Amino acid sequence: MPTVVLIGTGNVAHHLFRALKENIIQVFGRNEQALREFSESTSTTSSIDELVAADLYLLAVSDDAIKEVSRQFSHVKGLLAHTSGSVPISQLSSERKAVFYPLQTFTFGRDLNFSTIPICLEATNKEDYGILEELANSISKSVYRINTEQRKKLHLAAVFANNFSNHIFQIAMEICEQENVDFDLLKPLIIETINKIEHLNPIDAQTGPAKRNDIQTMQAHLEGLQDPMHKKIYQMLSKSIRKSHEEKL
Amino acid sequence: MPTVVLIGTGNVAHHLFRALKENIIQVFGRNEQALREFSESTSTTSSIDELVAADLYLLAVSDDAIKEVSRQFSHVKGLLAHTSGSVPISQLSSERKAVFYPLQTFTFGRDLNFSTIPICLEATNKEDYGILEELANSISKSVYRINTEQRKKLHLAAVFANNFSNHIFQIAMEICEQENVDFDLLKPLIIETINKIEHLNPIDAQTGPAKRNDIQTMQAHLEGLQDPMHKKIYQMLSKSIRKSHEEKL
Repeated sequence: MPTVVLIGTGNVAHHLFRALKENIIQVFGRNEQALREFSESTSTTSSIDELVAADLYLLAVSDDAIKEVSRQFSHVKGLLAHTSGSVPISQLSSERKAVFYPLQTFTFGRDLNFSTIPICLEATNKEDYGILEELANSISKSVYRINTEQRKKLHLAAVFANNFSNHIFQIAMEICEQENVDFDLLKPLIIETINKIEHLNPIDAQTGPAKRNDIQTMQAHLEGLQDPMHKKIYQMLSKSIRKSHEEKL
Repeated sequence: MPTVVLIGTGNVAHHLFRALKENIIQVFGRNEQALREFSESTSTTSSIDELVAADLYLLAVSDDAIKEVSRQFSHVKGLLAHTSGSVPISQLSSERKAVFYPLQTFTFGRDLNFSTIPICLEATNKEDYGILEELANSISKSVYRINTEQRKKLHLAAVFANNFSNHIFQIAMEICEQENVDFDLLKPLIIETINKIEHLNPIDAQTGPAKRNDIQTMQAHLEGLQDPMHKKIYQMLSKSIRKSHEEKL
C-alpha cells in the first residue's frame, strides 16, 4: 500500500485524512493550531526539513495556493499530486506530477461514504498512475482516468450540478416562504427529480410549462414572482428549455 | 371510506387510480380506447347519464380543461375536486368545490410510493374537507391544508425545484459530453446536493466560485462554455448567488 504525506489542514484535507488514514504517515501544515487536530492519530509537522519520505505527497490546499505551495515540495522524490478539479497538472513544480481529484462537495463535519465518490486520476507516467490507482481503488469503487481538459469540463459541469441546482432550491424555498408554506413539501418532488434521472436522460425527464410552451401558465408564474432577479431566471431557463426541446424535435 | 368517481384517463389519472383503487367505483372518460385500460378493474363510462352517485368526483384532466369539464359535472350531488396546482378552486362550477393536489412529478409507467407524496387539500366547507382528508390520509403520510394562493406559490416553487433543476442537470450532461466524460460521474455529487439540504438550509449549503466571488475561476468557466445560452445562465445564476450572499452578510 502506498504511503502518503498529506499537505494541508482544511476541509478537504480533513475528509481525505479520514478516508486515507491507513496510508497517511505524516500531515504537513502551516497552521499549527489546525495541525493539532491530526496529531493524535499521526505524525505532524510544519517544517519542510522534517518531511518524511513517502510514495505520494497529497496537496489538499486551495486552488490558488497550489502553484506556490507545490514549489516548496519540488525537491521531493515521491509523487506530488494535487486534489483540485480546475487546476492543470502542469501547475505542479515537482518532477513527478499527478492529480487525485475526488468529485464531491465536502461539508465540514459531515461524514461521507468515500466508496461511492468518483476519484479522477491523472499522472504523467504509467508507474505513477499505478500508485494513484492502487490508492484510489482502496477507498472508492469509482476510479476514472481523467485528463486536465476533461477535468476542467467536469468541474464546470459540477458547478451546474451542485452550485446552481442548490441555488435554484434556495429560490424555491424563498417562494414558499412568501406564503408561509413549508419547503419540506417540495422535498419528495426534489428526490423524485433525482431518481428520474437515474433512469432517464434529463432531456427526456423534462416536464412543465416551458416544455409544453404553456404561455398562460408562464405568464401567471412571472406575475407571482416578487424578486426581479427571480423573474429573469425564470424567463432565461424557460427560454433555454424551449430551445432544447425545439432542437430535439 | 369515501367512494370516488375518477374523471380522466391520462397520466395523472393512471397514478391516482393505482393509489385510490379501493375507493374508485367508476372511471369517466371521453376517450373509449384509453378507458378500456381501466375497465378490467372497475366500471367505466363515457356517458354523463351513466354516472354513479359517489362521495367525491375527482377531476384529473389538464389545467386548461378543468373549467370546461367541470361544467358538465355541475349537477352532481357529491363533492367535485380538481387535482391541479395552478388552478383556483373557484374555477369549478359545482356547488361543493374542492382541490386534491398531489405535489409530485408523474411519469407514465413509473410506479410511485404515494405514502411520501404531499397531498394539498382545499375545500369550501368543513365537512367536505373531512371527506378529502379521510381519503388523503388513507394513501399518504403528508397531508396539508393549502389554500389557492399558497397552492399557486407551491406550484411556482415546484417549477424551480423540478423543471429548472432538471434543466440544469441537462446542461451539466451536455458539458460532460463535450469532453466524452460520463455524466454518471456527477450523480454522487447530485445526490449529496440533495442530502445536504435535508439538514441544511440551501443558502447555508451553498459553495462554489460565485459564493466565494472567485472571479478567476468564473472567467475560466465562462471561456469553457460553448453555448451562448449556457454562458448567460452561468452569469445570471452566479450573479444571483452573489446577491443572496451579500444580502445574508
